[in-house]
Amino acid sequence: MTNTPSQSTSSSSDSPFTLSPSFVPQFHYPDRLLVGPGPSNVDPIVLSTMSRPLLGHLDPDFLHLMSMTQDMLRHLYRTDYPLTIPISATGMAGMECCFVNLIEPGDTVIVCCNGFFSQRMVDIATRAGAKVITFQRPWGEVFEENDLNAIEEILKKEKPKALGIVHAETSTGACQPLDRLGKLCHQYGTLLIVDAVTSLGCIPLEVKKWEIDAVYSCSQKGLSCPPGLSPVSFSPRAEEVMAGRKTKVQSWYLDLTMIRQYWNSDRAYHHTAPITMIFALFEGLRLIFTQGLENRWEMHQKNHLALKAGLEAIGLEYQANPKYQLPQLNVVKIPIGIEDLKFRKTLLNEYRMEIGGGLGEFKGKVWRIGLMGCNSNPAIVSKILSNMEQCLISQGKAIPK
Amino acid sequence: MTNTPSQSTSSSSDSPFTLSPSFVPQFHYPDRLLVGPGPSNVDPIVLSTMSRPLLGHLDPDFLHLMSMTQDMLRHLYRTDYPLTIPISATGMAGMECCFVNLIEPGDTVIVCCNGFFSQRMVDIATRAGAKVITFQRPWGEVFEENDLNAIEEILKKEKPKALGIVHAETSTGACQPLDRLGKLCHQYGTLLIVDAVTSLGCIPLEVKKWEIDAVYSCSQKGLSCPPGLSPVSFSPRAEEVMAGRKTKVQSWYLDLTMIRQYWNSDRAYHHTAPITMIFALFEGLRLIFTQGLENRWEMHQKNHLALKAGLEAIGLEYQANPKYQLPQLNVVKIPIGIEDLKFRKTLLNEYRMEIGGGLGEFKGKVWRIGLMGCNSNPAIVSKILSNMEQCLISQGKAIPK
Repeated sequence: MTNTPSQSTSSSSDSPFTLSPSFVPQFHYPDRLLVGPGPSNVDPIVLSTMSRPLLGHLDPDFLHLMSMTQDMLRHLYRTDYPLTIPISATGMAGMECCFVNLIEPGDTVIVCCNGFFSQRMVDIATRAGAKVITFQRPWGEVFEENDLNAIEEILKKEKPKALGIVHAETSTGACQPLDRLGKLCHQYGTLLIVDAVTSLGCIPLEVKKWEIDAVYSCSQKGLSCPPGLSPVSFSPRAEEVMAGRKTKVQSWYLDLTMIRQYWNSDRAYHHTAPITMIFALFEGLRLIFTQGLENRWEMHQKNHLALKAGLEAIGLEYQANPKYQLPQLNVVKIPIGIEDLKFRKTLLNEYRMEIGGGLGEFKGKVWRIGLMGCNSNPAIVSKILSNMEQCLISQGKAIPK
Repeated sequence: MTNTPSQSTSSSSDSPFTLSPSFVPQFHYPDRLLVGPGPSNVDPIVLSTMSRPLLGHLDPDFLHLMSMTQDMLRHLYRTDYPLTIPISATGMAGMECCFVNLIEPGDTVIVCCNGFFSQRMVDIATRAGAKVITFQRPWGEVFEENDLNAIEEILKKEKPKALGIVHAETSTGACQPLDRLGKLCHQYGTLLIVDAVTSLGCIPLEVKKWEIDAVYSCSQKGLSCPPGLSPVSFSPRAEEVMAGRKTKVQSWYLDLTMIRQYWNSDRAYHHTAPITMIFALFEGLRLIFTQGLENRWEMHQKNHLALKAGLEAIGLEYQANPKYQLPQLNVVKIPIGIEDLKFRKTLLNEYRMEIGGGLGEFKGKVWRIGLMGCNSNPAIVSKILSNMEQCLISQGKAIPK
């Protein structure tokens, strides 16, 4: 963290851009406990694998690794959908991939809006040329049993191409029940698109049983890998819709008709796969299945309960309805008298711990504390509670006895 | 490389997708000398940095690392363009980023076509709604001084929004001279878009001096990092065009109006940056500027000449016009009597060395041998020559004395 090239050359030449920097910058990589909404800390086994030398993207050994990775992803999504692939970009590219491959200009899309990320779906579906209709609930709430009738009315009236909904809303900490929505959508010929960015690997997600047609997630939360990949999975019904498209997919990079040739059939070159990130994903998945997926879900629930008891004991109140609280993402209200930015800065600089602030409507009102993947363990719960308490006391908050 | 989940569970359950795999697959990571068209071997210092624990994407230390990375990227591109950013996906996403941000439906685009990757520009520009006009030269040739008049005629007649051209054509090994094209384009209000995927860090590329308006590259070739990032840079003229857009950029993930807020101004969250890949890029750039960029160009040229002398000595003939031969990518004709796939398979399995086959028109006709970044050194030249000679002899080719 010394001189930057622009600083170091600005006085030494009239045209600094034509010269190499006279001082090459350095960086000291600090350690952090990352217990915000993600990225979350990466499992050390995954990190050490990232130092392995590369393989070519058409190397037979790498192709074998790809197939094993896809098989594990199918197990993770609880499905046997053939079109299950990690997209070569971060989670939000997975969202875009789902919409641009399924939607054509003029299609109608329903988005169930109750937080920051469903709002993104609206933006992305609109850019894909969709006529978007939103079905709104206040931030922090979910669509419940008694909303299904209203959703059915919209489906009946609009016969939309797709309905988009978020499973684990990262901005509010609320978990959306999904078990009945797929069947309902399919009664009206509508595809169900689900955002599983914060749910995959942390809580039960049954892609086939719940009749989900398109689902996307990320690598840096429940999978304990670095950010950079977006696992997606598509039902045969979704594949049929893609096969019947009249227009080309607007994004070349995310066009599954070509990407699938590389991953699922003749291994035709489309783009160079991000080899090291695929190594990481493979190892992250291996760790999950070595532990057992159901055990992993239980682990998230158990450590959440311990964290929740501790946070409430030091006077912090949860934002979401307890009935729908996500175990992996704990959204609590900022206590009166505590300054959001000052508190989080102290936590980061003095306690080396990162928690998340609020997004959108919740900005300055909540903190987001994640217990995701390998970070969901009693030692980290203990560290979070101790750090939060100490830091609150240091900023003048009285802790209840 | 043992059982895959699907193999291991297919006989143990009626609904294998609802169960964790009974055998967790394993993978032995082999070592390879990657001297094809890329990915190329990663510098060991970069690899070891990839094992560093993550930082959050809004951590002040990480934001500082981002700024230093951008500064070095500007030096690498020989420019001071503020909008210089590594896009969070592989090189081809950089190509798409340039076209979707600059082109609106109905715009005219000229593409200079002389290989596989210029053809991709046509596809991507078309998906962005452009009317595309191609100016063709045979594969392996370049657009020379005497083509400039014809290009000027098209510019004068069509007044296109942009002209796309490839600097180092990865399918043919030919280097496109670019020093006069930008000025010519600007006489007719046309933006110059350049593919520098295989040139950046290997051969002289003067983005500002040559008046390039949009340029993209990748991380896995001249920069000796893994694939996964695409550094792009845009001129102020290109920025003006973006600012004057009448329509939203069709790709949300590649929309620079939002990405630039995260990288260049108020650090507003757009998507979670691929932290580990940015660590890798920072270290890869550090290594280049520790050596010196001009020294790096010389190194590529010197080792190319040694490789070329050796390849010709064992009877291999170059494909491209010697005047335009790229030092970092040596495309040679497959000798008569040698089977392409069998030869490359032997090289990979027995010599642990990967070279590239031909793409498109050149499939089955050429081999592509890369000497990129940290792979451009005498020891690797020697290893390539020895392996090629031994493998050719083993497959019955007489080597000239």
